[in-house]
Amino acid sequence: MGEGSSTGIITLFFDEAAPGVVYIDQTLLPGEFRERTAFDIDSLCRAIKRLEIRGAPALGIAGGYGMALGALLSIHDEYIAFRQEMDEIRDILRATRPTAVNLFYGIDRVHSLLMSLHEAPVHIIKAAMLSEAHAIAQEDVLTCHAIGEHGLFLFPVDTHVTVLTHCKAGALACKQWGTALGDIRTAVGAGRSVSVYACETRPLLQGARLTAWELLRDNINVTLITDSMAALLMQQKKVDMVIVGADRITSDAVFNKIGTYTHAITAQFHDIPFYIAAPLSTFDEQAKADDIVLEERSPDEVLCFGGELTAPVGVPVYNPAFDVTPHALISGIITEYGLVTLPKDIGKIISWRS
Amino acid sequence: MGEGSSTGIITLFFDEAAPGVVYIDQTLLPGEFRERTAFDIDSLCRAIKRLEIRGAPALGIAGGYGMALGALLSIHDEYIAFRQEMDEIRDILRATRPTAVNLFYGIDRVHSLLMSLHEAPVHIIKAAMLSEAHAIAQEDVLTCHAIGEHGLFLFPVDTHVTVLTHCKAGALACKQWGTALGDIRTAVGAGRSVSVYACETRPLLQGARLTAWELLRDNINVTLITDSMAALLMQQKKVDMVIVGADRITSDAVFNKIGTYTHAITAQFHDIPFYIAAPLSTFDEQAKADDIVLEERSPDEVLCFGGELTAPVGVPVYNPAFDVTPHALISGIITEYGLVTLPKDIGKIISWRS
Repeated sequence: MGEGSSTGIITLFFDEAAPGVVYIDQTLLPGEFRERTAFDIDSLCRAIKRLEIRGAPALGIAGGYGMALGALLSIHDEYIAFRQEMDEIRDILRATRPTAVNLFYGIDRVHSLLMSLHEAPVHIIKAAMLSEAHAIAQEDVLTCHAIGEHGLFLFPVDTHVTVLTHCKAGALACKQWGTALGDIRTAVGAGRSVSVYACETRPLLQGARLTAWELLRDNINVTLITDSMAALLMQQKKVDMVIVGADRITSDAVFNKIGTYTHAITAQFHDIPFYIAAPLSTFDEQAKADDIVLEERSPDEVLCFGGELTAPVGVPVYNPAFDVTPHALISGIITEYGLVTLPKDIGKIISWRS
Repeated sequence: MGEGSSTGIITLFFDEAAPGVVYIDQTLLPGEFRERTAFDIDSLCRAIKRLEIRGAPALGIAGGYGMALGALLSIHDEYIAFRQEMDEIRDILRATRPTAVNLFYGIDRVHSLLMSLHEAPVHIIKAAMLSEAHAIAQEDVLTCHAIGEHGLFLFPVDTHVTVLTHCKAGALACKQWGTALGDIRTAVGAGRSVSVYACETRPLLQGARLTAWELLRDNINVTLITDSMAALLMQQKKVDMVIVGADRITSDAVFNKIGTYTHAITAQFHDIPFYIAAPLSTFDEQAKADDIVLEERSPDEVLCFGGELTAPVGVPVYNPAFDVTPHALISGIITEYGLVTLPKDIGKIISWRS
């Protein structure tokens, strides 16, 4: 286990020689694979705003690295001036995606260190900030690998397993490796025989554009389908289990990309296990599903495709970004600490947190 | 009941004054509404090949009208030469869509009449061929209206009903009115309060492009969603029933556009009735689902959109055109003769046929 065993995609990393933040430009995928380097805060902000860097954990890491980059580029060696510049950079970075909680987490964690070290020489603070940013990234990698290890029991040594997945819960959302795709990568790495059906995930096609791309690049057997083909494959006994990620897990339900709930119902109908792969940071066990307002996104995502209008002008659209899958439909949640089956295991979550 | 009450779309009709076959060019929808007229067999063949005219019943009508148009344009008034020309036109029309059973039905029905009338004067035969083509069209209209009347019981007089539908089972597949959308049109025409969720129907988006367009044009309350949003709407209690069409009904299952089976499972999970609207000609009660090979279509339908590649080059695709919904998931099938609930009512189908 650990970063050394990874052969997966590296979504972003810090190049200390440059210095700069190197990242895969996700707006060009799947047509073109291009790594770019943000050598200054302006370029990094542009990359975040233009969604070249996206995905909650990846944004957290970008936030941390952004603060570290700002520190290394700073010409100040006196604390007050340095601190003032860092405060400005924090605000600039935070303003790029004002609702991205993980982004703030990464920025603020590195910024807090700056404050706690106010008595140290500035060059020491700069080095410590970079270490803290590296730690955020490394924790993400370790978390994904731990999720992968804990999910290994799903893949018998001598049986081929076909997994259906939805949206992207892969390396491109994280630093590397991924959650649901992390389970698959770990199993393949351990020599298990695995193939994957990737649902394209309308309206934004993250499954077609990113998940299929990631798996193909890693030489993992993947077949692309539209979302509505999953049930037919289950009927044909071509799916052994479903594994998806999660955006938020309350005490009674899992919030994930629209389409997840449908797969959970059809999986239950066909007696197929349905697993979630998600880090502990996804859990919000104090909340209930009814407390949470579902984000509705722009009608254009449904009305248009690649800039072309594919529906009549003026037709009303309902476009929820997520759906709500009750725990009763879920066989288990694979976390970096092990398997939980809510709500029975809510105590485990609480004890793992503390 | 009958054509007089229709305010719906007229997909195609025969203009005797021209003469010619007038049709809505379906390749331009939903961006542009344009009626075109095929004044000769060449233009009509091109319209069929380019899918400007599409949908099984509409193709049957186009085939019949094609034979009638050929007859009216013929300069022959002697039977042998006329018959020879009509044989050629039959072969030319049949070659446009070699697997379209309904197209052959329309062509052959009018062609058979020609043979049975071989002792009549050619100008009488020409008139009779046009009448026969009109009869094919009129039967389709009457069938759709009868399906609409028999479906009226689903819509209470004093309760608003929200229907979810998938793909297109509307006027554009037929001469006018439609099957599943025919039920909705008849209910709205009878003053019932109805709104519709139209699933976009990946990969070819017939729901977004055609169903949404038809309903919007008829001022019927319609909201467009992606296919995977249906289950969330059911969970939110926003769907009262599902009505879809059918491509083929065997003794044990309904074959319809991919995605239908998913809606049937999620409807049952939420205790929502699931109806099929289909003419008797759809039934193939001798066959079983396992006898039928599912058509798989080109990967490009899933990989590309409007000519733009939206998935990585080289990713394998599974693209079945239809899925298979067992009768156990279906509340009932609304035919032009009334409601049936297979397999219990298989005897009804057989008696209605005879």
